[in-house]
Amino acid sequence: MPMYVVGHKIPDSDSICGAIALAYLKNQIGEPAVATRLGEVSPETAFILERFGFEAPELKLSYAGEEVYIVDHSELTQAPDDIAEATIVGIVDHHKLGDLTTSTPLECWIRPVGCSNTVIKMMYDFHGVDIPKEIAGIMMCAILSDTVIFKSPTCTTADIRCVEDLAKIADVDDFEALGMEMFNVKSAVAGTPIRDLVMRDFKDFNMNGNLVGIGQLEVVDLTVFDDIKAELEADIATLKEEGKRHTVMLLLTDIMKEGSELLVVSDDVAVVERAYGKQTENGRVWLDGVLSRKKQVVPPLQEAFA
Amino acid sequence: MPMYVVGHKIPDSDSICGAIALAYLKNQIGEPAVATRLGEVSPETAFILERFGFEAPELKLSYAGEEVYIVDHSELTQAPDDIAEATIVGIVDHHKLGDLTTSTPLECWIRPVGCSNTVIKMMYDFHGVDIPKEIAGIMMCAILSDTVIFKSPTCTTADIRCVEDLAKIADVDDFEALGMEMFNVKSAVAGTPIRDLVMRDFKDFNMNGNLVGIGQLEVVDLTVFDDIKAELEADIATLKEEGKRHTVMLLLTDIMKEGSELLVVSDDVAVVERAYGKQTENGRVWLDGVLSRKKQVVPPLQEAFA
Repeated sequence: MPMYVVGHKIPDSDSICGAIALAYLKNQIGEPAVATRLGEVSPETAFILERFGFEAPELKLSYAGEEVYIVDHSELTQAPDDIAEATIVGIVDHHKLGDLTTSTPLECWIRPVGCSNTVIKMMYDFHGVDIPKEIAGIMMCAILSDTVIFKSPTCTTADIRCVEDLAKIADVDDFEALGMEMFNVKSAVAGTPIRDLVMRDFKDFNMNGNLVGIGQLEVVDLTVFDDIKAELEADIATLKEEGKRHTVMLLLTDIMKEGSELLVVSDDVAVVERAYGKQTENGRVWLDGVLSRKKQVVPPLQEAFA
Repeated sequence: MPMYVVGHKIPDSDSICGAIALAYLKNQIGEPAVATRLGEVSPETAFILERFGFEAPELKLSYAGEEVYIVDHSELTQAPDDIAEATIVGIVDHHKLGDLTTSTPLECWIRPVGCSNTVIKMMYDFHGVDIPKEIAGIMMCAILSDTVIFKSPTCTTADIRCVEDLAKIADVDDFEALGMEMFNVKSAVAGTPIRDLVMRDFKDFNMNGNLVGIGQLEVVDLTVFDDIKAELEADIATLKEEGKRHTVMLLLTDIMKEGSELLVVSDDVAVVERAYGKQTENGRVWLDGVLSRKKQVVPPLQEAFA
C-alpha cells in the first residue's frame, strides 16, 4: 500500500507542487507514494502545472486506515477530516507547529524558511536523489509564489539559493519574469465568483479555542478589487456565520506596493486592532509592509487571543 | 541572549548528551546556545559525562521570555512548566508527535530512529561541522543507551551506522563493552531510595485526557529487584494518587532476556490488559520481547485509551 502525500485544504501551489515533488522523491528511495489533493487547484497552480506538463494530483478526501505524509502545515483544521483514523508517517512544513499529534514516531522536516518546497529540496539533497527538470520547475514556482518573488519577510537566503539551483535544473533563464507572469495570472480576479475568490487561499486556525479564518489574495494592483470590495466584505460576514467562526479576515495584498488591506468581521474587533496596533475603519485597515499571513498576521493575532 | 537547549523532565542520557551536543553545534554555526537540564542526572548519565570529561549542564527550570530548543520529546507534560511563555525555536526528537505547539515558525528535526543523538549527528553533517572527540563519545553512549546496544526494536540502521562513525571519532575500540559497562552502572539499584528508582526514567503522557505515568528500569538481570519489588509497587500506587494519574506503570526491563515485567496500578486495569493482550496477576505481567516504551508500550496503550 502506498503512502499518500497531501497538502492542506484549499491547496495552494506549495501544497500541490510539494505533494508531487515529495511523492516522486519517496518513490525514488523505494517508498511507494501517491500525490493527492484536498481541493480544487487555483488558477496560479493550474498555470504552473500546465507550464511544466503535469496533471493535478488525484482529489482524495478520505484517508482512514492509510499512511499519510503531510505537506505544508501541521494543523488539524487544515488536514483531512478523518486524519485521526490515518497514520501520519511524516510532515514537511515551514509554519508554526500546529496541533496535529501522532501515536507513533514519524519524520518531521520543518524549517523556518519561506516555502515547503525549499525543505523538500533539502530532502532530495539528503537522499542524494536528482530532481527531474519538470519537478524542479514546479518546485521553483512554488517558492516564488510563497516568497512573493523574494519580497516576503518570510523569504530566507535558503529560499533564494534554492530557486537559483532549481532554475538551473529546470533550464529557466529568467525566473523573475516567470514569477511575474504567475502573479499576473493570480491577479485576474474579474469574472470569478466572489466565494471562490474568498476561498482561494483561505485557512482556519484554532486560536485559544476560537475559530479564526484568514484568507489572502495577492495581486499586482489593488484596484482590481475596487468594484467588488463590498461583495467580498458581505461574503466574509456570511462565511463567519456559516462556520461559527469568531473572526474572518481577508488580506488584499498588493505585491508591488508591498502591503495589505485587511478586511475584517469579528465578534470582537478590538482583538484584531490590538494585534496590529491599528484602528479599523468600517472593518478595513491598511497594513503597510504586511505581505505574509504566516509571519506578520497570524502570530500577533495568536498573541492577542492568548 | 543565547537560546537554551534542554531535554525532557527527569532527563535521561539522550536528553543530557543531546543538549550538550546540540548546544555545541549551534555555537559553531554562530547561534549562541547554552545546554541546560530539567532535573538530576541519572547514575548512567553521570558515568557517561565523567568518562568523557563533561560537567552536567546547568539546572534551569524556568524559561519564560527565553528562546528554547527542545531535545528528545514534543510533549507539554515533559517540557518546562512555563514553556508557554517561552519561544520554541526548534525540536530535535525521535518520538511520536506530541502536543507542543508554537505561535511562530521553527525547525523540527524529528526522525523515526532510535535516539535523538542520531538525529543530532545528521544536523552536524548537514551543517558540515566536525564533532569533537569527547562530544562524539557522549553522543555514542546516548545512542547505545536508547537502543539497548542495538537490541531495541526502535534501533535502525541509521543508529548503528551513527554509533560506528562516532566510535571512530571518539577513538573507542569496543563500543559494545562500553555499552555493557554503562548498563551495569544502570543495574546497580541496591541502596537507592525507592522513589528515586521509580522516577529515574519516568514520563507522563496525556492519553485521551487521562494522565498516564510510565517508568522504566533497564537492568542486566531482573533478580536485582527481588527484594524491593513490593516497595516499588507500593510507591507507584502512591505516585498515582499524588499526581491524580489514571494509571502508573513501571517496566522492569531485562536487557539480556529481552523482555519486561510490567508493574501496574490503574483506575481501569482492563485498558492496560486490552492494550497488551495479556491478563495481569496482582498488578504484574511479563511482556516477552518488550524493550521499548516508545515503540512497544506507549502506542498500544494510546490506542486502548482512544
